[in-house]
Amino acid sequence: MAILLSIGDELALGQTVDTNTAFMAAGLAERGVMTRMHLTVADEHAALAAAFRQAVRLEAASPDPAPGLVIASGGLGPTEDDLTREALAEAMGVGLGTDEEALAAVRSFFSGIGKAMPPRNEIQAQKPIGSRFLPNPHGTAPGIHAVIEGVNVFVTPGVPREMRAMFSDAILPLAVPDDDGGGVLVTSKVATFGMGESDVSQRLAAIMARGRNPTVGTTVAAGYCSVRLRAEAASGREARAMLEAVAGEVEAALGPVCFGRDEETLENATVTLLLEKGLTVTTAESCTGGLVSEMLTRVPGSSGCCRGGWVTYDNAMKSAELGVAAATLAQHGAVSAEVVKEMAEGAREHARCDFGIALSGVAGPGGGTQEKPVGTVWIALAGGAGVRAWRGRFRGDRATVRDRAAKCALQLLRLRVLGEDTRSIQWLQPEAP
Amino acid sequence: MAILLSIGDELALGQTVDTNTAFMAAGLAERGVMTRMHLTVADEHAALAAAFRQAVRLEAASPDPAPGLVIASGGLGPTEDDLTREALAEAMGVGLGTDEEALAAVRSFFSGIGKAMPPRNEIQAQKPIGSRFLPNPHGTAPGIHAVIEGVNVFVTPGVPREMRAMFSDAILPLAVPDDDGGGVLVTSKVATFGMGESDVSQRLAAIMARGRNPTVGTTVAAGYCSVRLRAEAASGREARAMLEAVAGEVEAALGPVCFGRDEETLENATVTLLLEKGLTVTTAESCTGGLVSEMLTRVPGSSGCCRGGWVTYDNAMKSAELGVAAATLAQHGAVSAEVVKEMAEGAREHARCDFGIALSGVAGPGGGTQEKPVGTVWIALAGGAGVRAWRGRFRGDRATVRDRAAKCALQLLRLRVLGEDTRSIQWLQPEAP
Repeated sequence: MAILLSIGDELALGQTVDTNTAFMAAGLAERGVMTRMHLTVADEHAALAAAFRQAVRLEAASPDPAPGLVIASGGLGPTEDDLTREALAEAMGVGLGTDEEALAAVRSFFSGIGKAMPPRNEIQAQKPIGSRFLPNPHGTAPGIHAVIEGVNVFVTPGVPREMRAMFSDAILPLAVPDDDGGGVLVTSKVATFGMGESDVSQRLAAIMARGRNPTVGTTVAAGYCSVRLRAEAASGREARAMLEAVAGEVEAALGPVCFGRDEETLENATVTLLLEKGLTVTTAESCTGGLVSEMLTRVPGSSGCCRGGWVTYDNAMKSAELGVAAATLAQHGAVSAEVVKEMAEGAREHARCDFGIALSGVAGPGGGTQEKPVGTVWIALAGGAGVRAWRGRFRGDRATVRDRAAKCALQLLRLRVLGEDTRSIQWLQPEAP
Repeated sequence: MAILLSIGDELALGQTVDTNTAFMAAGLAERGVMTRMHLTVADEHAALAAAFRQAVRLEAASPDPAPGLVIASGGLGPTEDDLTREALAEAMGVGLGTDEEALAAVRSFFSGIGKAMPPRNEIQAQKPIGSRFLPNPHGTAPGIHAVIEGVNVFVTPGVPREMRAMFSDAILPLAVPDDDGGGVLVTSKVATFGMGESDVSQRLAAIMARGRNPTVGTTVAAGYCSVRLRAEAASGREARAMLEAVAGEVEAALGPVCFGRDEETLENATVTLLLEKGLTVTTAESCTGGLVSEMLTRVPGSSGCCRGGWVTYDNAMKSAELGVAAATLAQHGAVSAEVVKEMAEGAREHARCDFGIALSGVAGPGGGTQEKPVGTVWIALAGGAGVRAWRGRFRGDRATVRDRAAKCALQLLRLRVLGEDTRSIQWLQPEAP
């Protein structure tokens, strides 16, 4: 097991989001080491020394037979508020000493960028007596490795690029030798969009039962409901085979709302599908202001299926550019099934694409009415078997309404290309026939 | 002082980066409450209950005369791995009871989106006996407030939007009454785009000297260079006055690359300026795929200055929709000053706007040549005094190139509307006259 310490006022005060911890915890988990605690500590000498002592005490007392592990990041810079070296020395009950080799390395880093070493940087060549330095190929502050009460304690710089290299190249091989015969822990994810979290967990109730291996849980973020899988096994290969089997069960239980595994994105899954089938798409957006087009073109190679599109925020542009009839706008209003269908068809014809997607809605915060409250978005898809429209009802602020509507448009397109039912998208209601 | 607990396997394993903690720590710091520890705990009943007990014990023993504060987020969902309620009950030494009012609220949330409540969600109406619920306007899981050994313990959902509303509306007013007479720490930010961090720090060298109050530092994120200010004073009013004075000095030293304070965004500053001046803008985007338009229309009320725009990914669409001459495309290529200028003028004429912005470039990863490597983006602005083009050179992956190019387009537009020099944008080079 491991304890991670993040050091810095900017972290404790919330001015910076700590991404180092997630990186290290994920790297340790892959090697079968569970991070049981993260601690974030401000740049204060006493608090830092106490945190080192407490973390070492907890790890030394752990029932785990593997050696304890404490990794701290931050506070190794040259400025007055960088106190990690001193705090670690105090926790070890020793003083600081200067390492001549390290001093030469700091000097050579500066001469390499054509500068003289500022005197303050000399402190970066100091370390607690009895500890050793870890090389830092990307910066001036070397890392530190000490063994206290049998627990491996490492300190890395807080700069993510420097920390990552040191963690992977120096700390992992030392602290967690490969294939030590112990178990490994491998994670995976099945990504879904459209189905509610409670529906997902109901369909997966048997697979999610506690105490199973792999463990299966759900998380919701940015409208996506992810099914997280975690397998423990003697080897990485065995764990991955277990994950593969359960991910297949999850996909079978949930159906086509699953758009990919692990880091796959909805936009990438959609574009890949269009490219595979040799199909093209164009967009006509009002309330989403270009977001659907922007998402599709995030994907390298999307020019093979995306010709371009229109943002027709203004009614006059809906008519002039896409041929939406003035009478349709007057009779039904810009936020209506009729208007989005004419937008989608107009865009598809003008751009000569297989599919046209159109969106028009009330993203808020203003503009809502009783009949069409904020969060109402009409989405139309032209192509294949004619043109159809769906009404979306989204909760949340302007950014959330736009985001969910755009994702619904992509998932609609994906499901229609696959020939699948679109009723699994919880936010959408098809236009009355 | 405060202790924050983040709950969830996905956090402990590093599958998700914890942004909630930074948000809460920043909110507490503004009220003068220092977060002395963050703890991240996996979804395990025993570990969770122990974390609650330990946090309460530490806070109860704190020498700080203010009541102790523990805020946990996560693990209030409806699934089997959501164990926070049970763990809190165990730490309190009580059982769980169902709250009929809360049950009705969960039911009404589902009927509001036209669904029956899944049976599993019933658990979201349960809370430790003796605790009370906090309303959740954005989701189904109410928060929980309990007092243990005189320490205020709060639990919020992990979904950031739900946590943020609950933290600001329910927890802060209860846990940290305003103006308790203690010292306060107030932060502010001057946001800039275009100037490099080393240029910024050189111009601010005197203001950034160590040991001053307010302290001044720079951070770079997403291409923005933010100048962060932090003032300590006896009262919020005094601290804010100190920040105001130094923020003014920063803005005077850096000039119009400063687009706003605190949470102001570049897109909001740009749209607000256009609305103030009664000006309109349209967009013609190739490599950014709609991102400039999407950014402008993020701003509520942007329909007052944005009529719409085009994404002309395909050369045929550049000609058919915007009137770019086939000869210009053939002679100079799609990524050229000539083409973006014709795009910008065509869009401006078609949409009848004051300004037309056009972008065409090589976002990568493929498509680069020696003459036009990946990261080359031409940007044109039509309107005011004719049409001009700038060449941008951006480093980074596809998403970064698109993002920086779109932000440069907004900052260009903003500076031109203000009648300011555009040379302060480090990435751009004006077309040779």
